[in-house]
Amino acid sequence: MPEKVFASIITIGDELLIGQVIDTNSAWIAGELNQIGILLKHRIAVGDQAGDIRAALDAESKRASIVILTGGLGPTADDITKPVLCEYFGGQLVTHEPTLRHIEMIFQQVLKRPMIERNIRQADVPDVCTVLLNERGTAPGMLFKKDEVWYVSLPGVPHEMKWLMKEKVLPLLQDHFDTGVILHRTLLTAGVGESFLAEMIADIENSLPAHIKLAYLPNYGMVRLRLSGWGTEKETLEKDIFHHFNLLKERVANYLITDEDIPLEKAVGQLLKKNNATVTTAESCTGGYIAHLLTSHAGSSAYYKGSIICYDNQIKTKLLGVTETSLQEHGAVSASTVEQMAAAARLLMEADYAIAVSGIMGPDGATAEKPVGLVWMAVATARGVKSQEMRFRFDRKRNIELTAAHTLRLLHEAIVDNK
Amino acid sequence: MPEKVFASIITIGDELLIGQVIDTNSAWIAGELNQIGILLKHRIAVGDQAGDIRAALDAESKRASIVILTGGLGPTADDITKPVLCEYFGGQLVTHEPTLRHIEMIFQQVLKRPMIERNIRQADVPDVCTVLLNERGTAPGMLFKKDEVWYVSLPGVPHEMKWLMKEKVLPLLQDHFDTGVILHRTLLTAGVGESFLAEMIADIENSLPAHIKLAYLPNYGMVRLRLSGWGTEKETLEKDIFHHFNLLKERVANYLITDEDIPLEKAVGQLLKKNNATVTTAESCTGGYIAHLLTSHAGSSAYYKGSIICYDNQIKTKLLGVTETSLQEHGAVSASTVEQMAAAARLLMEADYAIAVSGIMGPDGATAEKPVGLVWMAVATARGVKSQEMRFRFDRKRNIELTAAHTLRLLHEAIVDNK
Repeated sequence: MPEKVFASIITIGDELLIGQVIDTNSAWIAGELNQIGILLKHRIAVGDQAGDIRAALDAESKRASIVILTGGLGPTADDITKPVLCEYFGGQLVTHEPTLRHIEMIFQQVLKRPMIERNIRQADVPDVCTVLLNERGTAPGMLFKKDEVWYVSLPGVPHEMKWLMKEKVLPLLQDHFDTGVILHRTLLTAGVGESFLAEMIADIENSLPAHIKLAYLPNYGMVRLRLSGWGTEKETLEKDIFHHFNLLKERVANYLITDEDIPLEKAVGQLLKKNNATVTTAESCTGGYIAHLLTSHAGSSAYYKGSIICYDNQIKTKLLGVTETSLQEHGAVSASTVEQMAAAARLLMEADYAIAVSGIMGPDGATAEKPVGLVWMAVATARGVKSQEMRFRFDRKRNIELTAAHTLRLLHEAIVDNK
Repeated sequence: MPEKVFASIITIGDELLIGQVIDTNSAWIAGELNQIGILLKHRIAVGDQAGDIRAALDAESKRASIVILTGGLGPTADDITKPVLCEYFGGQLVTHEPTLRHIEMIFQQVLKRPMIERNIRQADVPDVCTVLLNERGTAPGMLFKKDEVWYVSLPGVPHEMKWLMKEKVLPLLQDHFDTGVILHRTLLTAGVGESFLAEMIADIENSLPAHIKLAYLPNYGMVRLRLSGWGTEKETLEKDIFHHFNLLKERVANYLITDEDIPLEKAVGQLLKKNNATVTTAESCTGGYIAHLLTSHAGSSAYYKGSIICYDNQIKTKLLGVTETSLQEHGAVSASTVEQMAAAARLLMEADYAIAVSGIMGPDGATAEKPVGLVWMAVATARGVKSQEMRFRFDRKRNIELTAAHTLRLLHEAIVDNK
C-alpha cells in the first residue's frame, strides 16, 4: 500500500546565503519529485561549513526518507561536501575508476587541456556510497543509505544536476519507494483580485475533500489557482481533481486565460498558433523582453516573426515612421507614438498582430508630467489599433515585467475578440 | 564590542515545495542583511502547515538572533502564518486601526471596488507584536520579540516585502544589534577554467587570513571569484580585503572582465559608455534576449539604440539585406548570414558596434549537419566583421543564455581590442 513519502533538499554554498545567487535548482527538483509521487517537506540552504552541513543532515533525516543535497562538489578548496559526507557516513575516499576515465576523456576531448591533480581528485568517492556517474561534468553524484533514509549528493551546476536526477536518481527512487500519486492542476485568471476570486469560489473551496488543497498564487496583476491532491490510486485522484477543477473553471470562466500551468506568453503563443496567426513587437522601454518571452518557448517560429526594438527615438522615426510631430507634441511615451509604432510594425513585419510599448521604467527618465512607471501600450490588428495607459510604481525590473504582462494580456484579449 | 549576528529566513508556502515558484526573495534579503553586517545562517522553506511552521520557528530561534518569515499573509484560506504566529507567541488578534484605514484607502482610491470581510480581517494583528504598516499592500508586517530573538513576518509579494525591509525592518535591526561589518569583493574572469584558476592563485588563497574567505562561482563558461570577510571595524577589514583583492586582480589580469559584482552585460555597458560608443543587436535565435539584457540596467540609453529581431528568414532578408544566396547555400545558421546581419545592423542603426546571432536552440529545428546547440555569432566594428561558431549541448533556455553570454564576451573583446 503506497504511503506518503517525504523528501528534503539541502543546498550547500555560501553564495546562497549572501544573496549572490538565486536558487533555481530546488524548484526544479521539487517539481520532478512531485511527478513521481514524492512530497517535499523542507528545503534548507546552508553555507560551506562542515558543522552546518552535518546538523542539516541530522535534522532532515528525522523528517524525510529522502535527503537531496546539491552543491559543494567542485574542485576548489571551498567545496567541502564530499569530505563531510565521507566522514558523516564513516567511509574512506577511494578512486572511482569509471569517473576518472570520464574526467580524462573530458579534458582530452572537450576542454583540450592537461588535467591537474585537483581534477584527478574529483574521481575520489567515499567507499560507502553508490556512485552516480555524471556524464555531464566532472563531479560524480553519490547515493548513501543509512537507517532507511536515502541521501543523494549532486553537483550544484543546474544542467549537471538535472541530468543526474533524470537519468539516475529518479529511476532509483521510483523503484525503491512505494509513493502514491501527487497531482496538481492550475488555471490562470486575469482581471479579478485575489479576495474577490476567493468569495466567488468560496463554496467550491469549502466543499473540497481533505486530500485536495486549493492555493492562490497572485502575480503580475493575475491570480493562479492550483488544486493539489495526494492519493494511493492515480485514476481515483485524477477523477476527484478533475471534478473540482472543472467546477472552478466554470465559475471563473469570464476571467480565465488558460487552464494549464504555463506562463502567460505561452498561453498567448498557443492561442496564436490555434488561430494560425502571427505576431510582432515594437518595443521601446521593454527593450526586447516581450520578444524574448515569446521566443523562449519551443515552436515559437510558428507565430512569431521578429521585432523592432526602437529604444532610441531616432529608430522609432527611421524604421517605424513615427512622426516628428508625435514625438515633439506628445512625446515618445504617448498614445499617438505607440499607436504609430504598432501599426507600422504590423505592416513592416507582415504580421496579423503587433504590440507596441513605450514608457519610463526608471530610475531615470521621469519628467514633471511623465513619472517613472508611466507606460503606453498598443495592439494593432486588421481592424485597427487600440492603446492603453498604465502606471506602475515599482523598480525597473518589475516595471519591465509588468509592462510585458499587461501588453500580452491586451494581445490575448485582442485575439479572443477577433475570433 | 560588535559580535557576529546571525539571521535565518523561513519562507512559507506550498508553492515553494512543489516547484511552482522560484524563491527570489531570500537572495535579496540575504544581500540586504549582509549590507548591515548580519550573517545569514540558514534558509528554510516550509509548506502551509501550522506544525511545520512552529517546528521551523523552534529550530531557527536556537541558531539565530533574527528570524525573518515571508509569505502566508494573504486574505485567503491557505494563508495561515498570522494565526500560527498569534498562537505561538500567546497573543490575541485585534484590529490595527492604521492598517484598516490604509486598506480602506487602497480599495477606495486604487482598486476602486468595495471591501469585503476578508479584506477587513487583514487589518487584524496579534496584540503581542509591533505592527509594521505596509504602505505597498494590504498585509501588515509584524515584529515579535521573545527570549532575545527577534521574529519578523513579512508578505511574500516581492515588492511589498522589499519595501517593508528597507523602510521598517533594516533600520530597526541596525538600531538594536551591534553587528560588525561584512564585506564582499567580487571579480569576473572569462577564458580560464575553475581548476586552472585555482592553481594560478593557490598561493594567494593559502595566505588569506582566517577572517577572509575565497569562493569560486563558475557559470556560463566564466568564473567569478569572491572574497568575503567579517570584522569589528570597517576600515581595517576594508584594508585587508582590498590588499588581497588587488593581489587576485593582478594575478588574473589576462582574464579579467570586471572587478565589480555585476553581470557581464552591465560590464559591457559600462565599457561602451566609457568609450562613448553605441551598440545594436541583430538577433535570430536569442529572440531579443541580448537586447533585454543590455536594457535591463538603468542608463542603457547612453550606449544602446535598438535592435532588429529577425527570427524569420524573410525578415533577415527584408530588413538586413541578407542575400538569398547566403540563406540557400549556407543556411540561416552560418558565418555568411551572421556576418551580413551584423554589418547591416551596424549601418542601419548607426551604431559603433553590432552583434548578430543565429543558431538552433532546440528542442526542434536540428538537421543532419546542424545539431541543436549550433550557433554562429558575429561582431561588426568600424574595422570589419568577425564571426565565430559555438556548439552548446543544453536545453533551450540555457542555450539561449550561453549564446548571449558568449556573444557579449566577443563584443567585450572587440571593444577592448579597439582601444
